[in-house]
Amino acid sequence: MLPSWNDTESKKAIIEFVERIATEDSTDFVPVPERIAVFDNDGTLWAEQPTMVEGFFTFDRIHEMVANDPAMKETQPFKAFLEKDVAAIHALGKRGIVEFVMKAHEAETQEAFKELVTDWFANAIHPHFKQPYTQCIYQPQLELLDYLRANGFKTFIVTGGGIEFVRTVAESIYSIPPEQVVGSSTKTQFDLKDKKVQVARLGELRSFDDREEKVVNINLHIGRRPLFVFGNSDGDLRMMQYTLSSDGPCMAMLLHHDDAQREVAYDKDFKLSPLNEALSVAKDWGIHIVSMKNDWNKVFAFQ
Amino acid sequence: MLPSWNDTESKKAIIEFVERIATEDSTDFVPVPERIAVFDNDGTLWAEQPTMVEGFFTFDRIHEMVANDPAMKETQPFKAFLEKDVAAIHALGKRGIVEFVMKAHEAETQEAFKELVTDWFANAIHPHFKQPYTQCIYQPQLELLDYLRANGFKTFIVTGGGIEFVRTVAESIYSIPPEQVVGSSTKTQFDLKDKKVQVARLGELRSFDDREEKVVNINLHIGRRPLFVFGNSDGDLRMMQYTLSSDGPCMAMLLHHDDAQREVAYDKDFKLSPLNEALSVAKDWGIHIVSMKNDWNKVFAFQ
Repeated sequence: MLPSWNDTESKKAIIEFVERIATEDSTDFVPVPERIAVFDNDGTLWAEQPTMVEGFFTFDRIHEMVANDPAMKETQPFKAFLEKDVAAIHALGKRGIVEFVMKAHEAETQEAFKELVTDWFANAIHPHFKQPYTQCIYQPQLELLDYLRANGFKTFIVTGGGIEFVRTVAESIYSIPPEQVVGSSTKTQFDLKDKKVQVARLGELRSFDDREEKVVNINLHIGRRPLFVFGNSDGDLRMMQYTLSSDGPCMAMLLHHDDAQREVAYDKDFKLSPLNEALSVAKDWGIHIVSMKNDWNKVFAFQ
Repeated sequence: MLPSWNDTESKKAIIEFVERIATEDSTDFVPVPERIAVFDNDGTLWAEQPTMVEGFFTFDRIHEMVANDPAMKETQPFKAFLEKDVAAIHALGKRGIVEFVMKAHEAETQEAFKELVTDWFANAIHPHFKQPYTQCIYQPQLELLDYLRANGFKTFIVTGGGIEFVRTVAESIYSIPPEQVVGSSTKTQFDLKDKKVQVARLGELRSFDDREEKVVNINLHIGRRPLFVFGNSDGDLRMMQYTLSSDGPCMAMLLHHDDAQREVAYDKDFKLSPLNEALSVAKDWGIHIVSMKNDWNKVFAFQ
């Protein structure tokens, strides 16, 4: 059970919680339909350093866009993306980046966008790990997702990343279907042409799925308070507090990236998506901190 | 199989379609995760005459609101609702009603609202059928939902009704969990007070889930083009066309209320939610028309 997790407090706490809510004569028993688990994606299920996977996709998309319109080259933030100037990009802030990314992810329809993303994932390689991005996912989390599902949980992703971007691969890499992915989204529009209906992309941000908005979107998409939540940054604190406000059994976990050898060590100094406030209030709220270094005996399957 | 359906063309078409997409060596085989079926609710799964179930809930809520603020009594549309003046209410139009209903469904939080709805359903009785509203659901459709699920379909509701209203009962009456209900929604807001997080209701319409917007919301919530769609009004035509624009196998059905004896006979003259355009283009788009009178040998379980 959970073979890539060491036999530390974190693993014990997970198993104790799952057995408690899944045992029929336990006072904390929770019926299967209410077993909702939500996971952040960037930095929780897959690596987000030196920057988010969607950032790398955007770098490549912008090169293609500039080829069609060379005047873009000298304007910001195109220039920063073209030069992969991570510091200049991070200075835009997480919301600013997501807004730009929605504009930069040009495609007429959702289906055309999905094709672009599928093609990109089939060829792109992570600059540090030298693996396809779809391999730069945390093996212990795959085991945890499987373990939760084997115990009747429905698993959801609630990500600051683009909902269509993550949906394109979530089913094949995490066994999480599109309808169980919640994320940032662009405005869209019904389009009927030549007796064909498509959903047109409008390139303007509809929802920036971060912090408070993660709670609003969990309510909109899932309609139930989660029982279990796993995040890794201040962007996930609000959904952890939402989960922990339940009157019944509940559990929140926070992944601490403290493993410079096998992955990267960072927390409050990652300006784009820091882990700072969540770390400081974790004890007070009863959030379990997972140490990548101590709690995981394997990070990636390829290692 | 489908015992409340007569052995007519409609039943044959459903079974032929399901067997075709579920047979592994069929050229039209569709893998289980892509078997998405969407159903409208009012008039498709439960009765919507003399007006929608949520309308009756609103009548009762308004009486409670007016008791707290008697000045409301003389203002419109409160007056029309207080007097159950269906003609005056219908004159507001479907969107106008949904906007008002969102305002009238006053509750501080989503959980408080759910409690109001739960209590109401436990006591309210349909004025014509003299049964709880949760019994005024179509028996053939319950069988169809079960049949589709037994064949690997995931069943969704896509309703013009309030998402929280329908979610409250969808699991117990249709076996459809909250996360598989898409509907009209009010704006909401994250709320943290006394170390408790709630989702606050703001009473302002966020999404009116009708016509084109049903397609936009299917994309947002489900993220896949449905394989099978069932509706009963022009409000459902757009999602039928979306389904039928698939390159692969797909099926759309339209319930025609032509049974004045066991239910009600109505179509284009129902001003609030007419069946008019959809009926006239059905043949051209390959939409199957289901006759309540001829295709169903039973309408409600209590009959």
